[in-house]
Amino acid sequence: MALWFEENASPAHSLKWKIKRQLFSGQSRFQHVQVLETEQFGPSLVLDGIMQTTSGDEFIYHEMLGYVPLMAHPEPHSVLIIGGGDGGLARDVLKCPQVKQVTLVEIDPMVIEAARQYLPTHTVALDDPRLTLVEEDGNLFLDRAAPGTYDVILVDSTDPEGTGPGLVLYTPEFHQKLYRALKSDGLYVQQTGAPFYNPEVVSMVTQDVAQKFAICRVYWCTVPTYPGGLFTFTAGSKRYDPMHPLREVEWSTRWYTKKVHEMAFTLPPYLGELVPDAVKSAQA
Amino acid sequence: MALWFEENASPAHSLKWKIKRQLFSGQSRFQHVQVLETEQFGPSLVLDGIMQTTSGDEFIYHEMLGYVPLMAHPEPHSVLIIGGGDGGLARDVLKCPQVKQVTLVEIDPMVIEAARQYLPTHTVALDDPRLTLVEEDGNLFLDRAAPGTYDVILVDSTDPEGTGPGLVLYTPEFHQKLYRALKSDGLYVQQTGAPFYNPEVVSMVTQDVAQKFAICRVYWCTVPTYPGGLFTFTAGSKRYDPMHPLREVEWSTRWYTKKVHEMAFTLPPYLGELVPDAVKSAQA
Repeated sequence: MALWFEENASPAHSLKWKIKRQLFSGQSRFQHVQVLETEQFGPSLVLDGIMQTTSGDEFIYHEMLGYVPLMAHPEPHSVLIIGGGDGGLARDVLKCPQVKQVTLVEIDPMVIEAARQYLPTHTVALDDPRLTLVEEDGNLFLDRAAPGTYDVILVDSTDPEGTGPGLVLYTPEFHQKLYRALKSDGLYVQQTGAPFYNPEVVSMVTQDVAQKFAICRVYWCTVPTYPGGLFTFTAGSKRYDPMHPLREVEWSTRWYTKKVHEMAFTLPPYLGELVPDAVKSAQA
Repeated sequence: MALWFEENASPAHSLKWKIKRQLFSGQSRFQHVQVLETEQFGPSLVLDGIMQTTSGDEFIYHEMLGYVPLMAHPEPHSVLIIGGGDGGLARDVLKCPQVKQVTLVEIDPMVIEAARQYLPTHTVALDDPRLTLVEEDGNLFLDRAAPGTYDVILVDSTDPEGTGPGLVLYTPEFHQKLYRALKSDGLYVQQTGAPFYNPEVVSMVTQDVAQKFAICRVYWCTVPTYPGGLFTFTAGSKRYDPMHPLREVEWSTRWYTKKVHEMAFTLPPYLGELVPDAVKSAQA
């Protein structure tokens, strides 16, 4: 009998993926970690029953989360990744020649181990000499970080749902720590989910970030394995406007281009209504 | 027990929607017609088991299918809609003051009847005096149409799958008929589905349209109830470039704006690889 994985996108909607086999399943201190080999998109990481990243469509999410802030910063030498233990984001960030060091802080060692074994196209850069891998709670890591350390911070986390480890990464206290850890011209990005199902996430985060940072922006893409079509990111920046890429990407990409970067900040009225007026009018 | 509707997006992926009640179910000469009241997006039209249009998210598809060609044509007086018996597209087209007459050709009277009864926000303009409703096969209708009749033709159909009535609307013969029925500066658009699951549709249609029309373009959006994230449209035009809107929309919209129009033609490399080089380079 065929094996299917079912994910609840909302109480009234779910997605099912046909599975060739379960490659890994374990209960860590933080969450239930699975790697499933899906027929549609190959090996895929599932945390607490939610699809996080698949080998077949991860390029969209990782290129948009990584390259938008990196290309909007003139000299992104020092990058901090919070979460992202699957390695896909670090791999893409390390393709950028301006990046001199990346610190990846993953709370859950089991995610890293499962990815190393079963998501080889994600983890290919985890042993890059420019990368420092830290197994720690990103929130606690930031408490210890020296002020003004990073050019770019990327928060690659689960959704702020239930009691999962992603929850704290969407609080005003956490945004304050991000602000403190960034250099005086630094910027950060985090995913703010699918507005059709969780409009409160992008609303809440943009309101807070618009108060703390000189510049707050929202941009979007669409990922087949993330339900709800429209999928958003929120950026907070101290100086450079994330809307404006400063360079062309000089290596092969499958989703990101300079033009895709620019278009991603165009807000359909439906999305504009969910963010503060100042953000909306700046992107109109 | 809760009622769920399940749609197969591909042999390895399906979507489930929680249903409050089935409002309508009937077998027409052409297809199985259902209207289901979904918890997530309200009353929704389902044809042969595939979700076509929901009250909650239809604005994205209808505004993008209708307003992109209408705004790219200087004088879209005469509009033909093939399919679209639910009325949603005609409703949006009729908001455009330049439009003087719309002919809507729907093959299946049962779709119109079910929509009139259960999708009232879709059918609100079906009795507009500028609209002529024809219950006929759109393909046969075009055989009888005088050459050079329409400024804009919109094909609002089911996917080209199985033995459904949408199949013929994706053939070279049909595109030839569209070309003939358009004025010497006319243009047309049709949906070409989700490339992640059916890449052959947008590839096949753009190859044919690029040969027949002076200008072929592809644009995209994302609709929560259409699986696969990226959802495409293909346009064929005799004179005006569909990429360039000539006017601002002067009424309330929820997705379409002049800027959204422009951004929708930006092709991520993944999508660019699926279309002819001439199309890709024109939109690069």
